[in-house]
Amino acid sequence: MNFRYDIAIVGSGPAGLSAAVNAKIRNKSIIVFGKKELSNKLIKAPKIKNYLGLPDITGVQLKEKFEEHIKSMGINITPENINEIYAMGEYFGLMVNKKMYEAKTIILATGIEYTKPLKGEEKFLGRGVGYCATCDAPLYRGKIVTVIGYNREAEREANYVNELVGKVYYIPMYKGILELDKDIETIRDNVVEIYGNGKVEKVILGNGEITTDGVFVLKDSISPSQLVPGIVVEDNHVKVDVDMNTNIPGCFAAGDCVGKPYQYMKAVGQGQTAALNAVLYLDKVN
Amino acid sequence: MNFRYDIAIVGSGPAGLSAAVNAKIRNKSIIVFGKKELSNKLIKAPKIKNYLGLPDITGVQLKEKFEEHIKSMGINITPENINEIYAMGEYFGLMVNKKMYEAKTIILATGIEYTKPLKGEEKFLGRGVGYCATCDAPLYRGKIVTVIGYNREAEREANYVNELVGKVYYIPMYKGILELDKDIETIRDNVVEIYGNGKVEKVILGNGEITTDGVFVLKDSISPSQLVPGIVVEDNHVKVDVDMNTNIPGCFAAGDCVGKPYQYMKAVGQGQTAALNAVLYLDKVN
Ligand SMILES: Cc1cc2nc3c(=O)[nH]c(=O)nc-3n(C[C@H](O)[C@H](O)[C@H](O)COP(=O)(O)OP(=O)(O)OC[C@H]3O[C@@H](n4cnc5c(N)ncnc54)[C@H](O)[C@@H]3O)c2cc1C
Ligand SMILES: Cc1cc2nc3c(=O)[nH]c(=O)nc-3n(C[C@H](O)[C@H](O)[C@H](O)COP(=O)(O)OP(=O)(O)OC[C@H]3O[C@@H](n4cnc5c(N)ncnc54)[C@H](O)[C@@H]3O)c2cc1C
Repeated sequence: MNFRYDIAIVGSGPAGLSAAVNAKIRNKSIIVFGKKELSNKLIKAPKIKNYLGLPDITGVQLKEKFEEHIKSMGINITPENINEIYAMGEYFGLMVNKKMYEAKTIILATGIEYTKPLKGEEKFLGRGVGYCATCDAPLYRGKIVTVIGYNREAEREANYVNELVGKVYYIPMYKGILELDKDIETIRDNVVEIYGNGKVEKVILGNGEITTDGVFVLKDSISPSQLVPGIVVEDNHVKVDVDMNTNIPGCFAAGDCVGKPYQYMKAVGQGQTAALNAVLYLDKVN
Repeated sequence: MNFRYDIAIVGSGPAGLSAAVNAKIRNKSIIVFGKKELSNKLIKAPKIKNYLGLPDITGVQLKEKFEEHIKSMGINITPENINEIYAMGEYFGLMVNKKMYEAKTIILATGIEYTKPLKGEEKFLGRGVGYCATCDAPLYRGKIVTVIGYNREAEREANYVNELVGKVYYIPMYKGILELDKDIETIRDNVVEIYGNGKVEKVILGNGEITTDGVFVLKDSISPSQLVPGIVVEDNHVKVDVDMNTNIPGCFAAGDCVGKPYQYMKAVGQGQTAALNAVLYLDKVN
């Protein structure tokens, strides 16, 4: 049987870390899913002037402060990307490919993608377009797969897909040197459209097109409605009340994923509120 | 004519300071009312473990960090206690006794009183009980007034009242040496009840009672419904939505005064949200 955590926190940005710190102080068993580097958005900020108590700090410095804080409390990040979360009544099942983690409550702190969906991405979702390469790669044995990667982790996934399918094209949406298997074909071009009839047939590029059976779009985060079937989303944000409750009992959300303003302190404050309300919820159901 | 600020922030705790920092970054003209020591609650915290980025800090240290931050941005605290706020349509009038400040929007960040009202306090409010000694002292010329003080500032107010009325009793609700005019009579006893028939007649103490015409109860903050006539309050908290809007357009609220959890990061995050939404509101009405 799986260990069942009191609280699973999905996301290691400011909102998730604040939730973790507060849940830990309340003596709850927690697991935090995210990145070892915590949050790309954190690292990218050149100069932060509005994190009260830490005037004029860079994103990298703030990230180091956060790391120090969680380390001092014995909090670790589990570097896994959660693909899907099922509400099972008594608990939640958090899926990483075929592996499942269990928790009595969850806090979504997944941030938000600023990138617009590609043309055709949403139309062909589930009909050739997927977000989880490692989950769905086995469907494309012997076939042609295109991986559109938004970050360096996507390279690792592309390499994994490459072991299973016939041919892999990799289209990086970022600059820099790639670490890809030799037989993966890299295409540096912009994606105009994912095109097909009923299902994906090709990717139309700025300069040409490629025939493909499947397309994996690998971003930092997938949409909340994708991640948690049945969750109420409004204007692309998870709908919450002031206590950070979503429509699903035991499921809380905080940070950029619940709405504007997209800011650190707001994320951190909401993460705290979500954690403390998760604790109250656990006290009630236990 | 009075200068009309873009944003007046009432309260200098974590919520108010975070609002100030964010409003200032957006180039708004602001005024922050509160205490030079920022917030008693801040100073009193022995050890804070959940202020993300500043692990294991004392309340006094955190206060110093906040001071450094606002100082670096040229933000000052105006050490005045706002007695009442009127929504005038185009702007808000913030009253300090007879003096008025004007602002296009306001952010309430007044914290919350943990102290329960005294027995009789609410019953006789406006019928002998008051919260603003300097406003109402002239009503008691030649009469007996009792000042129940919860903090050292109340001593200053008692001295002022003493210039106008017949006799002043001072009941400190705290320990320590008092700086009171010689002819003020200090009573160190607990208050059992403020008692009267239709209006205040006496204060019943643990050991005895005193006859009095008026009682001023001087705490750190007065209730929001007292402060802003017409504001919607639920369970003692200002009612807000996730954007920190109150029911009065242009009036926002944040921190302990809007509800639990009573915590720094939550207060700071909400202060930020309130400020950024006040900025959006100003852009719309200007
Ligand atoms: C260049 C830049 C500058 C900025 N400057 C400022 C500033 O000066 N002041 C300010 O207040 N704000 C600033 N921001 C905004 C700030 O970065 C965000 O508001 C903040 O990071 C939001 O925190 P979050 O925890 O909600 O989400 P994020 O920081 O986005 O963190 C979410 C984390 O969750 C992970 N995740 C997502 N989905 C999953 C999943 N399914 N499984 C596991 N992990 C997952 C992501 O990989 C990510 O690490 C800036 C942003 C950028 C991009
Ligand atoms: C002993 C103690 C320990 C604590 N420890 C922790 C902890 O470890 N972690 C944590 O997260 N939280 C802790 N807290 C809670 C934390 O202090 C509060 O949640 C936080 O201070 C709330 O911030 P605020 O800005 O909403 O209000 P406050 O900090 O209460 O500030 C409000 C300010 O507004 C001023 N004000 C009120 N009315 C007016 C008016 N009419 N005019 C002008 N000024 C006005 C007040 O004088 C005060 O200075 C602790 C509290 C106490 C008492």
